[in-house]
Amino acid sequence: MLLVNGAVTRSIDALDRGLHYGDGVFTTLPVRRGVPLFLEEHLDRLSRDAAQLYLPCPDRELLQLEARRLAESQPDAVLKILLTRGTGGRGYQCPDPAVPTRVLALYPLPDYPASCSAEGVRVGVCATRLGHNPALAGVKHLNRLEQVLARREWSGSEVREALMCDQDGFVVEGVMSNLFLVQSGKLLTPLLDRCGVRGVMRARVMRVAAEFGQGVVEGRIGLDQVRAADEVFLTNSLIGIWPVAEFDGRRYPPGPHSRALMEALGRLGAQYEAAACRA
Amino acid sequence: MLLVNGAVTRSIDALDRGLHYGDGVFTTLPVRRGVPLFLEEHLDRLSRDAAQLYLPCPDRELLQLEARRLAESQPDAVLKILLTRGTGGRGYQCPDPAVPTRVLALYPLPDYPASCSAEGVRVGVCATRLGHNPALAGVKHLNRLEQVLARREWSGSEVREALMCDQDGFVVEGVMSNLFLVQSGKLLTPLLDRCGVRGVMRARVMRVAAEFGQGVVEGRIGLDQVRAADEVFLTNSLIGIWPVAEFDGRRYPPGPHSRALMEALGRLGAQYEAAACRA
Repeated sequence: MLLVNGAVTRSIDALDRGLHYGDGVFTTLPVRRGVPLFLEEHLDRLSRDAAQLYLPCPDRELLQLEARRLAESQPDAVLKILLTRGTGGRGYQCPDPAVPTRVLALYPLPDYPASCSAEGVRVGVCATRLGHNPALAGVKHLNRLEQVLARREWSGSEVREALMCDQDGFVVEGVMSNLFLVQSGKLLTPLLDRCGVRGVMRARVMRVAAEFGQGVVEGRIGLDQVRAADEVFLTNSLIGIWPVAEFDGRRYPPGPHSRALMEALGRLGAQYEAAACRA
Repeated sequence: MLLVNGAVTRSIDALDRGLHYGDGVFTTLPVRRGVPLFLEEHLDRLSRDAAQLYLPCPDRELLQLEARRLAESQPDAVLKILLTRGTGGRGYQCPDPAVPTRVLALYPLPDYPASCSAEGVRVGVCATRLGHNPALAGVKHLNRLEQVLARREWSGSEVREALMCDQDGFVVEGVMSNLFLVQSGKLLTPLLDRCGVRGVMRARVMRVAAEFGQGVVEGRIGLDQVRAADEVFLTNSLIGIWPVAEFDGRRYPPGPHSRALMEALGRLGAQYEAAACRA
């Protein structure tokens, strides 16, 4: 089911700037028992990303209402909220004022086996690299050709995810996930000041870790550091945490830090869902 | 007027990968007296760019037919041909096989005053820089947020175009045009191996210059070199050649090289139009 500017339809204006320039932002979250999980964090991210592109964000109440309306129609699903600068302007020049287009779409939940969380996944490295652009770094915008090309590099389900490096060879993230390492009891994650997406789950993991009294260091990380890490894990809003079981020939034993964070996030999710169902 | 997959409509599927990822390419050309000018060169570019993204290109005859059909409906216009990877796939993963979406759209010709060609234009420099990505360099793809942000940096018609530098500070192109310099009788243009768009008009200018016995050197060009040049001009398929009259406080006198190329391109255009009208 889809809502485009509040109407049940599957079509958008062929002149939309989202199509012509990727001029917009999006966020993706799971729906469980009809509840869009951590909707507020996703709307926070959406409006922060929109602001970075000078894109007016629709009323929060409107987005909440539409997200909940859609989620009720399919109890377990993936909800994508996509926002563009609408139509208009001459060429690249932005329309003033811009009237944003909002698309809310439900997808089936991906059928990842339970072993991905329980035992971890095998991870590769992409040849496709991420370009540096501080003006766009961190933002989950609609210019995602780098990820599309990277995802073409492998098929099948043996390898579940692959890491992407920047133009200098530093690891930035997975194609669809953020990356964390544990090294000598310390949590590390790539600094996303030049490229990469600041995931909602990445921020939640950093918050939960801080509550454990464990800061996360953001920095430049090389592939050698990933190989040498005690634990490696991937995050996004749909997978939660996937421990990395194998990377580039190196095998990692199940790690206590990943496990503790997974349990804490599981409790958070259950609390959110229960509170939302009561409300 | 718009054609989407051959049908007269203004709507496309809200799940199209062009919207979600900018997963596609485009080209833009003028229509004069119902003739899409240099359509073959534009279709060559479209299919070359599509191939670089592993995107299946529709039959050339089909695109020609649709372009000509549309052009007949509005004798003087801008024609945009846009191609996406269609719908489907899971997340970034490409559908296999992909069924591309094609959008052909007519727009009014921009109302640039004749003085832009005759006397030249005033040009600025953007703070927004282009990221390096050799895998996407040269391609006129749908990931154009850098241009959208750059175009926001000025308004009004006093400044007609602004140059964009890459992350190392080398000049790459204008927001909507390619750049050429004349220095001591030699033609130079930025090398587009790390970013930038290989314009159809840029290629035509290089061909015409070669016919004059004048090679064009592609290389890394700094802003100082632009300031020190004898002549500077901008190209795209809609503007043809615009001499730069003023850049960053420096004024350039009307230049013989720009003038000769403009005349040669004008003759080429008139020949093309006449031949197409006879056919």
